[in-house]
Amino acid sequence: MNSYGHLFKVTLYGESHQEAIGVIVDGLPAGTKINEELIKKDLEARKPKHIGTTPRKESDHYSITSGVFNGLATGSPIHVMIKNENVVSKDYAHLKAHPRPGHADFVSEVKYKGFQDYRGGGRFSGRLTAALVVAGSLAKMALPFELTHSLKQIGTLKDMTKLDDYILDVQNQGNSVGGTIEITVKNMIVGIGEPFFNKLDAELAKLLFSVPAVKGVEFGLGFEGIELLGSDFNDALVDEKGNTKTNNSGGITGGISNGNDLKINVFIKPTSSIQKAQDTYNLKSQKIETLDIGGRHDVAIVRRIGIILENVVAIGLLDQYLMYKAFL
Amino acid sequence: MNSYGHLFKVTLYGESHQEAIGVIVDGLPAGTKINEELIKKDLEARKPKHIGTTPRKESDHYSITSGVFNGLATGSPIHVMIKNENVVSKDYAHLKAHPRPGHADFVSEVKYKGFQDYRGGGRFSGRLTAALVVAGSLAKMALPFELTHSLKQIGTLKDMTKLDDYILDVQNQGNSVGGTIEITVKNMIVGIGEPFFNKLDAELAKLLFSVPAVKGVEFGLGFEGIELLGSDFNDALVDEKGNTKTNNSGGITGGISNGNDLKINVFIKPTSSIQKAQDTYNLKSQKIETLDIGGRHDVAIVRRIGIILENVVAIGLLDQYLMYKAFL
Amino acid sequence: MNSYGHLFKVTLYGESHQEAIGVIVDGLPAGTKINEELIKKDLEARKPKHIGTTPRKESDHYSITSGVFNGLATGSPIHVMIKNENVVSKDYAHLKAHPRPGHADFVSEVKYKGFQDYRGGGRFSGRLTAALVVAGSLAKMALPFELTHSLKQIGTLKDMTKLDDYILDVQNQGNSVGGTIEITVKNMIVGIGEPFFNKLDAELAKLLFSVPAVKGVEFGLGFEGIELLGSDFNDALVDEKGNTKTNNSGGITGGISNGNDLKINVFIKPTSSIQKAQDTYNLKSQKIETLDIGGRHDVAIVRRIGIILENVVAIGLLDQYLMYKAFL
Amino acid sequence: MNSYGHLFKVTLYGESHQEAIGVIVDGLPAGTKINEELIKKDLEARKPKHIGTTPRKESDHYSITSGVFNGLATGSPIHVMIKNENVVSKDYAHLKAHPRPGHADFVSEVKYKGFQDYRGGGRFSGRLTAALVVAGSLAKMALPFELTHSLKQIGTLKDMTKLDDYILDVQNQGNSVGGTIEITVKNMIVGIGEPFFNKLDAELAKLLFSVPAVKGVEFGLGFEGIELLGSDFNDALVDEKGNTKTNNSGGITGGISNGNDLKINVFIKPTSSIQKAQDTYNLKSQKIETLDIGGRHDVAIVRRIGIILENVVAIGLLDQYLMYKAFL
Repeated sequence: MNSYGHLFKVTLYGESHQEAIGVIVDGLPAGTKINEELIKKDLEARKPKHIGTTPRKESDHYSITSGVFNGLATGSPIHVMIKNENVVSKDYAHLKAHPRPGHADFVSEVKYKGFQDYRGGGRFSGRLTAALVVAGSLAKMALPFELTHSLKQIGTLKDMTKLDDYILDVQNQGNSVGGTIEITVKNMIVGIGEPFFNKLDAELAKLLFSVPAVKGVEFGLGFEGIELLGSDFNDALVDEKGNTKTNNSGGITGGISNGNDLKINVFIKPTSSIQKAQDTYNLKSQKIETLDIGGRHDVAIVRRIGIILENVVAIGLLDQYLMYKAFL
Repeated sequence: MNSYGHLFKVTLYGESHQEAIGVIVDGLPAGTKINEELIKKDLEARKPKHIGTTPRKESDHYSITSGVFNGLATGSPIHVMIKNENVVSKDYAHLKAHPRPGHADFVSEVKYKGFQDYRGGGRFSGRLTAALVVAGSLAKMALPFELTHSLKQIGTLKDMTKLDDYILDVQNQGNSVGGTIEITVKNMIVGIGEPFFNKLDAELAKLLFSVPAVKGVEFGLGFEGIELLGSDFNDALVDEKGNTKTNNSGGITGGISNGNDLKINVFIKPTSSIQKAQDTYNLKSQKIETLDIGGRHDVAIVRRIGIILENVVAIGLLDQYLMYKAFL
Repeated sequence: MNSYGHLFKVTLYGESHQEAIGVIVDGLPAGTKINEELIKKDLEARKPKHIGTTPRKESDHYSITSGVFNGLATGSPIHVMIKNENVVSKDYAHLKAHPRPGHADFVSEVKYKGFQDYRGGGRFSGRLTAALVVAGSLAKMALPFELTHSLKQIGTLKDMTKLDDYILDVQNQGNSVGGTIEITVKNMIVGIGEPFFNKLDAELAKLLFSVPAVKGVEFGLGFEGIELLGSDFNDALVDEKGNTKTNNSGGITGGISNGNDLKINVFIKPTSSIQKAQDTYNLKSQKIETLDIGGRHDVAIVRRIGIILENVVAIGLLDQYLMYKAFL
Repeated sequence: MNSYGHLFKVTLYGESHQEAIGVIVDGLPAGTKINEELIKKDLEARKPKHIGTTPRKESDHYSITSGVFNGLATGSPIHVMIKNENVVSKDYAHLKAHPRPGHADFVSEVKYKGFQDYRGGGRFSGRLTAALVVAGSLAKMALPFELTHSLKQIGTLKDMTKLDDYILDVQNQGNSVGGTIEITVKNMIVGIGEPFFNKLDAELAKLLFSVPAVKGVEFGLGFEGIELLGSDFNDALVDEKGNTKTNNSGGITGGISNGNDLKINVFIKPTSSIQKAQDTYNLKSQKIETLDIGGRHDVAIVRRIGIILENVVAIGLLDQYLMYKAFL
């Protein structure tokens, strides 16, 4: 239940406060050049450093223990491990009785019958996404497409030049804020994706919703397209390569890439952990009580999440691209 | 590539103008009572009949050729076939050169190298969703949850009492319109879904995006939640059953059902086929030309799509519910 | 649980006495020429006609309801249906209490809690293999390899010129007999199969054991190789194409095809249904009683099973061949 | 391509001479007690120590980096890593031109286009099976069944009291020998396995053939049953629990466990590496040349392989047992 993919398979493991997190990446074509600079750059983009991100630091040193030889993929599974270093050994046991609002503490307690590792969010910690980022970096090394992402909106703010001030204000209120990220894929080709269930948009949506805090995914115009009539929404073909006059469909028609840029818009909810005290039900005392989570958390995880979203898109694209190649 | 599911598996076949469409449903627990009234009711809800839906009629007579004995599921795969009856034998061959805007004609021509059955949209026809509806009806027979759907907005119209007038107006312009559907699942339990990749929201999003014309999916508040701060967005637990004061997360936390109602909002793009003439590229003449699709099409497929969305959610829920049971 | 394959997927349905059996074949490359003569020839090879095969006849008329256009695969799922025609409406209900030795009556009753369709063996009937044969015929149309099978031994008989007499003798005793079939694949290439879990031999063994009555599978020399020392067992490479001096490994090294012919030997147990009376436990009376199955059955199903085995090998090979192509 | 399982999933990584090998085990039920003594005992059973096993030693120290908390499974993936310690840094590069008979050197060179890590057999090394053993040990902790294995025959020797002498003799010839292992599972229940493709015997055969050197798998009497007629082969039911008078079917009927002991017989080919010089084709010189592998290898890997076979059976059984539970 922790694996994704058909030909390019990604299997994640790890919990926030155990020895390590990591990932097995299976299906990177033999001979793919391993670009360690890209891995480092992508991990760096995920790290907290801007205003509004957590002061907790993890070095994110990774080790590749298999599947790479002379700097090239061998065709065998690649295992990448990242040790958990900055683990504070404080007592988290009280969270079992006192689930944090917005977090998976309660569902986890019920689903795993109390056996889950509850420390630091355990399996549900954003920490896991570091391994996911590396898997995506590896995917990008074998993809002929070009992926980027950008922050479109944060809370009510659409003008990104005022970002730091806006976040500082939210931080001073002891609160948190969400936002939207746009992912773009250029140099696409026609024909990636399958007509049912394995549609390109269906697979990418599944991957994007696998990233913690994602609560909405739309392609092209998305929900904004509701006010358009068909004659305006339809993208008119203008050449034999598949280029269209507009790109309201976000580069996907019938679940299959149409050769135009992929355009995906993702909504990230406000970070669940906030400084402010909040009400929650105490499972032991059986009363609603006020909970003060404390600690210092990301005010706006949306500032760091873009690279994770970009990289899960890369994972999905490589998987589908290999399937496409099988039928050439 | 036309199958979905781990323990409850759905495999679709069919093309618009071939002999039949159908579905194999595998994993309906032995002894499940087959409620044929529900199948008929669900198929009826998908049929065109309201203003703005196509005048083309299909009887949607289905036959169950296996897997049911004495009115109960045997535990073997259930095959349901629906013959294509109302097939007009007109010539569709020109569409190969002249791809319809918004349709999969072009991507299909490229991906299948011209070998696809292009008649009536072939594999990409909305016709296929009749079989999908039946699969969902079967899933609902084994689910302890209660699913409903409702039309929330159509084009710019939010007041559904004015629906017929609004659609008639669009129809008179020879145009089409999209909208949003909300799906609600009541009587949920805590613990359905897996922490990564097989998150409940990830699987449901994949299924929803598998339905033609879906271009956006959000859970709970979704994109509207962008203006809320964390203290307002977080749902506060109020009892030991998992009930929360608000339900901004739409009943899913960390990818796992939290016991509150599921709330999913889906955006449906305007129907691609319109009466109005449109520009498209002619692959033969290698020029942009005007295309008049003709025929009479759904002005607002969003009026018929709700039951399809509801039923794919049922498919996903039963699959995850069986997985949940495996670990009880 | 009734599907096989990664890129070439086969999903079976049907029970002996329901309306139809059939198969969905997904992943046959678009443009593959559909050779109906091959389907008919393969179905014919499975039909009872020789001495020792059942006098019950099924026409095995099949219909392809989707996925083929102008005699070529469209790239969409191909649904093939075979109606159950020769269904005798006698009462099978007593078999629920009185399970036939060697048959799945008892396990089926327990596993499906009595809800299974028990008539004629239901889901466990050899009838299902007709659909499997068609799936394999379709696979062979897209494979560059050449598959054959031959009967090697039947009971104690190794000289196939005496086959009819031998079987007649067993038939006169009201008994049944098993045997071994050898499958050979020529024109193989190097590199089909994956190093772990999806090894070529592992996948083919899984498919072969999916065929009712198979109780043993070996590659190359198989169990007979036990008396050889390594120096005799090892196949020595003699050229750069992968040809080896001997072929004791049956064309597979490390789970991957080595370019030599595949050689697979399969053991088929004696047909479970025999004319002779047999003891079994009566679940109702709770006593061991004598059961007389009656009817006229195959004395030697091994005479008809070769084409089924050959064709499941084709299914596995096409699936792996497409995977191989994805990484070229 | 390096994963197995539906609900209990095992994903392997590693190559003989890279930093580590390991496994992710996903789906061990939360709360399962982790019995480290069993892991150590099983790893010990795989270690070379008897006459005829390699003098190369690996400590097989493993570390569990995730998924276990307070000695119990958390329900998250369990990652187990085993470092490669005893790696001799000699030059293996000549093996690329000079493939060892019986080994995967040649197929690997072709399939991975020369990019494979060829040192010590790379991905094809028996080394990988240490991680597989641990996965099986974990599976056994959650299984209510009892697994054992025994050596039945080695070369021509059936009397195991003369084992050491027999192997010593083969060793003195610079040669190697194969054999057969029997796996037995007691305390089985009725109903494990699915009627098609996921039959219990089909899944177990797939897993067994995934183990290097396995060349034959049979259930119950297997190939020896060829001389029996149906009346002798059929197992007669003697009570309502499923017990049968004989167990010629090896505990599986119609692909489903019938409540009797599982009996599986596996043929292991002679170890490929031998002291004797052998002919092979030199891909560089393009001539057949004599190759002296040197080193000291297992004379009879069959002495160590039993625990690996037993444990892959455990993996398959737990996966199917969880599926069985989903439909209770």
